[in-house]
Amino acid sequence: MTLLLNNDEAERLLKMPEVIDELALAYSDLARDQAINRNRSDTAIPRPKLGASYVFKSMEGGYPRRGVYALRISSDIIQWPNRADGQHRKEKLPALPGNRWLGLVLLFSIDNCELLAVLPDGIIQRFRVGATNGLGIKMMARQNARRIGLIGAGYQAGTQALAACAVRTIEEIRVYSPTAAKRQAFADEWSDKLGIPVIPVAHAKEAVANADIVLCATNSMQPVIQADWLEPGMHLSSLKRFELPAECYRRADRVAVHTRLWEPDMLMMGEENIPDDELWAKRKAGDGIDWLNQPEIGQLTSGQISGRDNDQQITCFMNNVGLGLQFAAAGALLFEKARQTGAGRELPLEWFTQSVVS
Amino acid sequence: MTLLLNNDEAERLLKMPEVIDELALAYSDLARDQAINRNRSDTAIPRPKLGASYVFKSMEGGYPRRGVYALRISSDIIQWPNRADGQHRKEKLPALPGNRWLGLVLLFSIDNCELLAVLPDGIIQRFRVGATNGLGIKMMARQNARRIGLIGAGYQAGTQALAACAVRTIEEIRVYSPTAAKRQAFADEWSDKLGIPVIPVAHAKEAVANADIVLCATNSMQPVIQADWLEPGMHLSSLKRFELPAECYRRADRVAVHTRLWEPDMLMMGEENIPDDELWAKRKAGDGIDWLNQPEIGQLTSGQISGRDNDQQITCFMNNVGLGLQFAAAGALLFEKARQTGAGRELPLEWFTQSVVS
Repeated sequence: MTLLLNNDEAERLLKMPEVIDELALAYSDLARDQAINRNRSDTAIPRPKLGASYVFKSMEGGYPRRGVYALRISSDIIQWPNRADGQHRKEKLPALPGNRWLGLVLLFSIDNCELLAVLPDGIIQRFRVGATNGLGIKMMARQNARRIGLIGAGYQAGTQALAACAVRTIEEIRVYSPTAAKRQAFADEWSDKLGIPVIPVAHAKEAVANADIVLCATNSMQPVIQADWLEPGMHLSSLKRFELPAECYRRADRVAVHTRLWEPDMLMMGEENIPDDELWAKRKAGDGIDWLNQPEIGQLTSGQISGRDNDQQITCFMNNVGLGLQFAAAGALLFEKARQTGAGRELPLEWFTQSVVS
Repeated sequence: MTLLLNNDEAERLLKMPEVIDELALAYSDLARDQAINRNRSDTAIPRPKLGASYVFKSMEGGYPRRGVYALRISSDIIQWPNRADGQHRKEKLPALPGNRWLGLVLLFSIDNCELLAVLPDGIIQRFRVGATNGLGIKMMARQNARRIGLIGAGYQAGTQALAACAVRTIEEIRVYSPTAAKRQAFADEWSDKLGIPVIPVAHAKEAVANADIVLCATNSMQPVIQADWLEPGMHLSSLKRFELPAECYRRADRVAVHTRLWEPDMLMMGEENIPDDELWAKRKAGDGIDWLNQPEIGQLTSGQISGRDNDQQITCFMNNVGLGLQFAAAGALLFEKARQTGAGRELPLEWFTQSVVS
C-alpha cells in the first residue's frame, strides 16, 4: 500500500520540535557517512510564449536510521521579474488548473523498495527549512537569546519563527516586510500562534536593532540588511546567500552552511532563460568567502565543531540549498505519525509496482 | 487529471516503428540543443543483512517538441553475484510484496506543469532500449543486412530483435543463451511474433558466424563474443560496454554511442557495497577507447555524421547508458495514444498538486 497524504495532514501531524530533533539525527548521521544525498538538480527549458522557463527540480536522500529514501520533485513555471522597487525575485507561477502548484515528496522503503508515501511538499518543505535554521540557532545562537529580528513575512517566515521559539526562550519578535499590510497580518497571525509579541516595524534596521537573532526569510536575490547594523553576540540566519551582503559573512566570527553540496546543478536548454543580470554575474564571480571550508550543520550537531566560543561573537548560519535527506527524515517522521493515527488515503500496491524487472 | 497506465496498456499501445521514429526526432532535437537530459544517478545504500544494496536510480529529460518532461525512477535491491559459470551479473531482486519490482515513469507538461501520466517502466523501457539500438542499426548497418546473430534470450532480447526487424528486412535470427531451454523458448516465442525463423544455437560463435548484425542483449559484465569472430560488413549492437571485448571496439571502423553523458553518476554510502572486483577495476582504468570522441546517435539521426562509408566496414553502436529523454519521447507517444483510445485510469488533479507554493 502507498499512503497518499495532503498538506492539511502534514500540518496537523508535524511538530516543529520533533522535526528539529529528527533532522539533528539525520545531519549527524550524514557527518558520519551513515546517510546520503543526491544533490538537487534544476533543469530549465525556456518557454518564450510564457515569458518564463519551465523548471523541473529534484533532490534525493537516504536515511538508513529509519529505513527510508526520499525523492522530492517540483514542476514549475518560473519567472525572474525585475520589480519596480529594484528587488530581484524568483517567482513560481500557479500554472496548474485551479491556480495550483506541483511539488511532491515520494518516500520509499530501503528494506523492500516499496513506495511508502506520496505527499505534496508545501508544508513539509517549510518545516524542514525552519527546522534546519532552528538547528543553526540551537547550535550557534547565545543560550540567552530573547529577541528576534525577522526580515520577511512570506510563507517561510512563520516556520522560521516557530523553529527559533522551539530552541530558545524567545520573548519578542520584530518583523519587517516592505508591504505594511503584509507585515501587520503576519504580526497578528503569529502573535497568536507563538503567544509572544510580534511587532511590525517599518524598516529592516528597526527589526535588526538590539536583536539577538536576525532571521532572514525572504526570496530576495539582493541584500535585505546591512553589515553595519550588526551587533556583538548576534546570530544571523539566512535562507539564501544573497539575502545577506558578503560583508556580513566576512564580519561573522563563525559561519556555518547547510551543506557543502553547495548549490543545485543547473542544467539549461538554450541560453535565453538565464537571468543574466548583475546579480547572477556576481554569483558566478564569487564573493571572496571560502564557502567550501565552512562547517556543515552536521559537524555542529554531531559535536565535531562548536557553534560559538563566547557571547560576544557574531555567528551566522546560511542555509545554502536543500537536501533530499531533509525530506527522508521529516518524511519518515510524518509517515510514522500518519500510520499511527490512520491519516491519509491508501492506494493499491499494484498501481506503483510491476511483475516484471526493468 | 493524471492518467495511471499499466504495462499491459503500454504493450498494447506502443508500436516499435513509431517509437523508433519518435526517438529519432528526439535525438536530432538533442543534437541541436532543442531537448535536454538530466543525467542518470544511482544512489546505493548497503543493506548488509540482505547481502545486497538498496539502489535508487533516477533520470530526467525534457522534450519541447511534444511539450513534456519525464522522470524515470527505480527503487531496487540489487546483488552483484559471482555466478558458478564465472560470469558477473547485476541482479535486481523482486523485493516488494508479491515478488514485484518498482520502476516508474512520471510524465509532466512543460506548458502547465501538470503530472500527465504515471506508469510502470517495464514495457516502455524495453521499447526505448530496443528503439535506440534499432536506430543504431538503421543509421549504421548495411542496407542489405538480412541475418541477425542474437546473444541473449532475456527480457531485452525480444525488443532488440523487434527493433532490428523494423528497420531492415531480416530473414533469419540465430539466438544463443547459455541455457538450452531458455534459448529454445525464446526461439519458439519470437519465430511466431516476428514471422521469420529464429534458430537456437549452442555456442555464441555459431550465432555470430555469417551474421550481418550481431545483437548483444545480455546483462553480462564480461565479454560474450570474441573479436576474432568479426567479419567485414558486420554491424555490432551492444547494451553494455562490457558485453563486447575492447578489441571489438578497436577493430570497428566506426563506433557510435548513445550519449556522451556516458555513465550514471554513482553515489555510494560507505564502501562495502561496491562490487570491487577485477571488472570494476578495469572499468575505472578505462580500455584505451576514446569514448567521449565517438559520435552520439543524435549526430547520426540528424545527418551530421554518416553511419558507414561502404559495405565492408565494421560498425558498432554501444548503448552506453539510458537517457530521460527516451522516456519523454516514448512517454509522450504513449500518453497521446492512451488519450485517443481512452486507456488508463484517471486520478484526481488534487492528489498531486497543491494550493500553496513551496
